[in-house]
Formats: sequence, C-alpha cells, structure tokens
Amino acid sequence: MKQHREHPLGVPTMPGSRATPARVEHGLRPARVTALDRLLVSRLAKAMGSPAVAYALWDGADAYTPADPTETVGRITFRDRRALISSISSPELGFGDCYSAGRIGIEGDLVRVLFASFRAMAIGGHMAGKRGLFGRLPKPQVNSRDRSRKHIRHHYDLGNDFYRLWLDDNMVYTCAYYRSQEASLEEAQLEKMHHVCRKVRLQSGMQVVEAGCGWGSLAMHMAEHYGVRVKAFNISHQQTVYAREQAEARGLADRVEFIEDDYRNISGKYDAFVSVGMLEHVGKDNYKTLGDVIHRSLKRGGLGIVHSVGRSFSAPPNAWLEQRIFPGSYPPSLREMLGIFEPHEFSILDVENLRIHYAKTLMEWLRRFDDHVDEITRMYDESFVRAWRLYLGGCAAAFLASTIQLYQVVIAHPDDNRIPMTREHVYGRDGPDWNL
Amino acid sequence: MKQHREHPLGVPTMPGSRATPARVEHGLRPARVTALDRLLVSRLAKAMGSPAVAYALWDGADAYTPADPTETVGRITFRDRRALISSISSPELGFGDCYSAGRIGIEGDLVRVLFASFRAMAIGGHMAGKRGLFGRLPKPQVNSRDRSRKHIRHHYDLGNDFYRLWLDDNMVYTCAYYRSQEASLEEAQLEKMHHVCRKVRLQSGMQVVEAGCGWGSLAMHMAEHYGVRVKAFNISHQQTVYAREQAEARGLADRVEFIEDDYRNISGKYDAFVSVGMLEHVGKDNYKTLGDVIHRSLKRGGLGIVHSVGRSFSAPPNAWLEQRIFPGSYPPSLREMLGIFEPHEFSILDVENLRIHYAKTLMEWLRRFDDHVDEITRMYDESFVRAWRLYLGGCAAAFLASTIQLYQVVIAHPDDNRIPMTREHVYGRDGPDWNL
Repeated sequence: MKQHREHPLGVPTMPGSRATPARVEHGLRPARVTALDRLLVSRLAKAMGSPAVAYALWDGADAYTPADPTETVGRITFRDRRALISSISSPELGFGDCYSAGRIGIEGDLVRVLFASFRAMAIGGHMAGKRGLFGRLPKPQVNSRDRSRKHIRHHYDLGNDFYRLWLDDNMVYTCAYYRSQEASLEEAQLEKMHHVCRKVRLQSGMQVVEAGCGWGSLAMHMAEHYGVRVKAFNISHQQTVYAREQAEARGLADRVEFIEDDYRNISGKYDAFVSVGMLEHVGKDNYKTLGDVIHRSLKRGGLGIVHSVGRSFSAPPNAWLEQRIFPGSYPPSLREMLGIFEPHEFSILDVENLRIHYAKTLMEWLRRFDDHVDEITRMYDESFVRAWRLYLGGCAAAFLASTIQLYQVVIAHPDDNRIPMTREHVYGRDGPDWNL
Repeated sequence: MKQHREHPLGVPTMPGSRATPARVEHGLRPARVTALDRLLVSRLAKAMGSPAVAYALWDGADAYTPADPTETVGRITFRDRRALISSISSPELGFGDCYSAGRIGIEGDLVRVLFASFRAMAIGGHMAGKRGLFGRLPKPQVNSRDRSRKHIRHHYDLGNDFYRLWLDDNMVYTCAYYRSQEASLEEAQLEKMHHVCRKVRLQSGMQVVEAGCGWGSLAMHMAEHYGVRVKAFNISHQQTVYAREQAEARGLADRVEFIEDDYRNISGKYDAFVSVGMLEHVGKDNYKTLGDVIHRSLKRGGLGIVHSVGRSFSAPPNAWLEQRIFPGSYPPSLREMLGIFEPHEFSILDVENLRIHYAKTLMEWLRRFDDHVDEITRMYDESFVRAWRLYLGGCAAAFLASTIQLYQVVIAHPDDNRIPMTREHVYGRDGPDWNL
C-alpha cells in the first residue's frame, strides 16, 4: 500500500541520523545524563508552565516531576540528548520530529498528557507560539495553485484505504457535531452535515457550490437529503476519484459533479456557497481571493458558510503540523477570517464555535486509528504511526486547551434582506420565517 | 418639560442663521434657482449613486428625477441654496442639520426615502462614509469618564417622560428580537431579554453584572425570571433613578442593585457578564479596557455577552448622528470588536446578527413617536422632532441597507471547557447538555 517513493511525512528520521525508533531504544547507547541535562529539563519544564507531566531522561529517571504528584497525568521521556536539545530549541518541530522518530516517548493517555502540557503553557508558560530560544522560523509555505496541489496531495492522497480504517462510513474528515454525548461518530457526522445544510437554508432545486469537498460526503448528502444540485471542487486526485465512484454507486452522479480543480477556478452562480475544512489550507495571502470567489459565485439571496479550524488570536501555526502533516496550512484568527469577508462588505450573520466537538471527533478518530495500528504500521511504518498519533492526539488536546477553535461562519451579500430572520430553522423549529 | 438650558440637540439652527423651519418656509425669500444649482443637484445625485428619490430645489421644481419614475419613492427638497451646498460639502452633518432646521424637506415615507438613498450609495455611490468634497472631519470625541458621563446624559437624560411616550412598557431602548413578524414590540422586547438570558445560560442563584443597563429592564427581567442577583451599572442619572424606583415597585430591590457608575469601575466576580447596547458608547480607544473589565469580573465557567450596533467593515460613524444624537458613539466592525476579546484570548462562542430586527424595532419606535408628535413638539420644539425622526428613520434605513449591523457576541474564558456544547438551549430544546 505504500504509494510514495518518499516517506509520506518526510520525517521518519532525524537530520544526521538514520536511527529508527527500534535502534534508538535498543541499539546506540545514549550519552550519560549530566547535571546540565537535568538543569535543562527543569528549565524546559518551567518554560512550559510546569505541566502536570513528569519529564524523564535517557537514564530512565525523572528529571522533573510536577509539584502535585497526584495530578501527574503521564511522563515524557527524552531518550537521548539530541531529543532534549531539539525540543528546547524547537519545541514544535523538534519535539514532533523526535517523537515521530521514537527518540521521545510518552507514557499515559496521549491526549491527557498533551492537554496538560498545552494548558500549562497557555496559563503560565512562555513558549507558546514560540520556536524556542535558538529556533528559526520555518519558511512560510506559499499556496500557489501548483503548491496547493502538492500540499493537498501530501496529506489527502495518502490512500483512501488508510482513511477508511478510522474515519466514519461516509469518510467525513472534518469536525463532527454531537447533539448528545452518546452520539456515535457516524451520527455526529450526519448531524454536522445537516447542521451545515440548515445553516445555509438549502431548498430543493438550488444550485450549490462546494469548495474543498474531501471524499464528497457533504456534496452527496446535500443532493440526497435536500434535493439540490452540487458542483464540488477538490484538488486531491484520490479523493475526487473516490467521490465520483460513490456518487455513481449512490445514483447521485446526475446531481453532484466532482471537479478536480482549484477553488480559485470556480465559475458560475450558485444559491449557496459551502466550504467545510478547506480554509485551513488556503493560507492568509489568499483570503482576499477566496472572498472574490464567494462574491462572484454566490447569488444575491444566497447564503455562504465557511467552516474552519481557527484561533482566538493570531499566532503562527504549529511548525511541526505545518511542516509534516499539513504543509501550507494556517489556522486563522476570526479577525484574519474577516479578511475574506470585509473587502466585499459581506454581512456576517452567524459564527458558531465547535471546538469541543472537534476534540471529541479527533479522540474518536484516534481510538479507531489505534484499533488498526498494526495494519497502518504495515501500510507505512512505525514513525508514520507515531506522527499520526501525535497529530490526532495533539489536535484533540489543542481543541480542549482552546489553543485552536472551530468556527462556522455564515455570510450573506451586503444589503440582502432575504436573510434568515432567526436561527430557529437550524434547530428544527417550525413556523414560517418573516421578512420586512 | 424642557430640562436643558441649551437645546438638547445643540442644532436647532444653522450657523449664521436664526431661521426656524417656519420662517424658512414662509418668511425669507430664497435666492433664484440658477443653472449652476441644477448642475450641482445632478452631480449630487450621481455621487449618491442615482437613488430612486427625486431632488427638488427651492423653486419647487425637480432638478433630479430617477431614471425609472415608477420606482421613485419620494422627494427631497432643498429649500435654500445653503441647504444644498451644506449637503454637498457635508452630506452627513450638513444634511442632518439642514433637515433638522427644516431647510430640507422629505416627502414620502421617511424610512423608504432614506433606505433608497443608502442603498444607492452602497451600490453605486462614492460618497458613502465620506464627509463630502469640502467637508472637514469632525474632531473625534474622547470617552474619558467625565466625557462619557456628559455624552450619555446628552441623550439618555432627555427625560424619562419623553422616552415613555414611544418605547415599550418596559422602557427597553435596544434592538428587539422578533420571533415572528406579528409579534408586538412589547413581546419582541421580552423575547430579546429571554434570548440574551438563554445565551449566557442564566441559572438561579447566579451573580450577574450588567454594564450599561438603561432603565433597568433587562436587569429586573434576569432577577425576576431567572432567579439571579444583578449589579447593573449606568452613568445616566435619570435612568438610574427610574430603574431604582421600578425595582422597588416590583419588589426586586433586594436582588437588583443599580449603581450610577462607569463600567470601568465594575468590581467583584460574576457568573455572567451582560452588556446590551453600551458598546456603541464605549469608543474604540477603550475596547482593551472593557476587555480587562470582563476578564477580571467574569468567573471561569461563566459566559459573557456583548450586544452592540456594529458594521461589516470599519468606517467613520455618521457625523451627524455622532455630533447631534449620540456624542462619542462609534459602531465598530466585528474586527474592531475583537479588540475587546483577543488581548485576553477570550473564546468567541457565538455571533448573531440581528440587523433586520433593529430595523423593525426602529420603525415601530418611529410609528409610536409619530403618534405623539404634537406632545413631543410641545416638550421640545419642531427641530428636535425633525432631528429625532431623522435619527429613528435613518437608523432603520441604515439597518435595512446593511450600512450598520447588530451583533450579539457570546464569549468565554480561554480553555474553559464548561461552555455550552450546542446552542439548542437558546432555542428551547430539552435534553441535558454534554461535556468532555
């Protein structure tokens, strides 16, 4: 199943090292732990806001333990000096790469350990959003049309068989919407799709355009349940192929067209503009362009929705995530998102924050991922598995710690008075809407 | 009932003129209309985006008529040359002052005429947000604590008897929430108060602080219907006196404390922070301070709501409104509002835009105002009535034209995971909420 000549993450090994996790653990003997190493650990713990997590070194002994041992949720072990130095000098990229390579171990529940770390950093740390003392900022990635295609394929073309192992049946790879805590992932993804459709008030016969459609689940859902026609854009080849097959199999091919093309090439006029989980990949420099696309493609009287990971304030993206998992990605603050809408004076009708829903979604993905960990290791390798567990668990923890948010933003053209008067239609209330 | 030695608006007359409306209409003879006057009108109409409104001059003849006469919604008459020149050089302040002084007349439905003007400007005009060719920007008003008190008293201390004539029974002077088109103003104001209370999930026994409480209707509503204790701040003396009397009469004085003081002096810790219709008067320079106040007064686990007139993009406030009706006021863009929340990394949970509701509210206020126009003229004078009709009708038209918005923003402390998981509680759905 390996489909890449290069390693899909581009990181199984550390620079200057060919050690695999097994060799780090059982082969090369790390240098002796010194007093300086222990001092560095205690400095690191302080800079991290003194999290409720123990830090151990390659001799197996804890070099930092939380003030209240009863609150300790786990242990992070630096298995060699370079892993420690890398984590200090580059707490995102260095730590992530070393963890992926097995040079850092995490004991305890992964999400809880990372959550404790992020929360401590947010409250009392001074390394949040920093690259570390000696770290250089990675070069920002530019999302030209060619680069976007490369970036998207890096992640989404890892293989449909891989994603099928741990996503829901409909292959929805965005934040679910849990109306109750007991809902299954499948139910919550269906609810999310209905939630989006209700927010843009889909009606039978409408023309809808979707920018960034993944494996096509939402496009097909809209056509099947709301009687609309959909043009759905995506630059992932594998996703598009899969989506077309599904639409054919479900008898929806006459109503849903999957187009393997960039959102910037959207043409035509639509009653609704839908984009769920694409904005993260658009990049700040292109927000004005995305706004232009929405402006020219959304009919007056139509509603648009943009659903995206975001932040409560502007900050550089996590360097490891941006370099290794989602190249070219950037979670915007709400302020930055307004850069899409303000130039065309779009009216912001509704913003909802679903961050805890994404935490729950990611924890469920991680659980299913872990159920298939042997299979995934055979498909890729152990460092891939470690990186993906760090990504899924780390994002769950970041949503829980409010480091990242999930925004759904509903917009309308300026001075369009056919907007929904209330949001009761989203919550299943009957009764005709009103207008002036 | 006149309570001010100065005229409450400070504008009944034009600079250099003591003419009252009656004298303009029946006394001094205006200069003859020239070809240049007619040219200026046609230029003005073009700059205004060619609205569906006729423009007449002091000879009574139309100098501009819309391309499609069937769409013409009314007529604006410049009753002397200075009124025309003032409107061109200062389309907000000059026009507003001349209209108030009776030197400009409007025939047809006031809201429809102004709406047609605003909409034309927004679509095709190039005077929107401008001061005109020769206009100077009025000095921005600073909202120090002393100035704030002066500004607030200018408007809100006009006399409770005046506001009682045209507000609802509860004296709610903010945007209502119409769940149906048929709802009365009274019902819609009650619904608005419930809507706010549900959004911040009030529970019996909570401590609530309200910043800018008007005549106390919401504070009393919260105590009466949700069993909370409220400290409500306001710097309008007349409003505070009235609110205290009402609380006494309704047997709520033990649960609602009205404090005649600035929001900046709020102390203590509360389960909810509520501010409805104050932010307009805070001024951009104080957003950071307001954020500090919310940050220190809102308990972890509590929700805050800020309800305010705003905009889809940053623009200077309407100069006439800011100078004559609401000194020191400023309707922020959503981006600017984030200046309150981002410094403390508040999580934005929910933004709702109720602009059409405010249009409907203002149209109802105007209708009631007109029902009492003789009485109000006796209380103040004709120019006061004209100015207030322009304010109420102009704001209704501006909300309809989407020149201004009405935002309700719900926030929580960062990394507080006791936030509502969905918004179903706002829409009356049963079922326990969930949490991770």
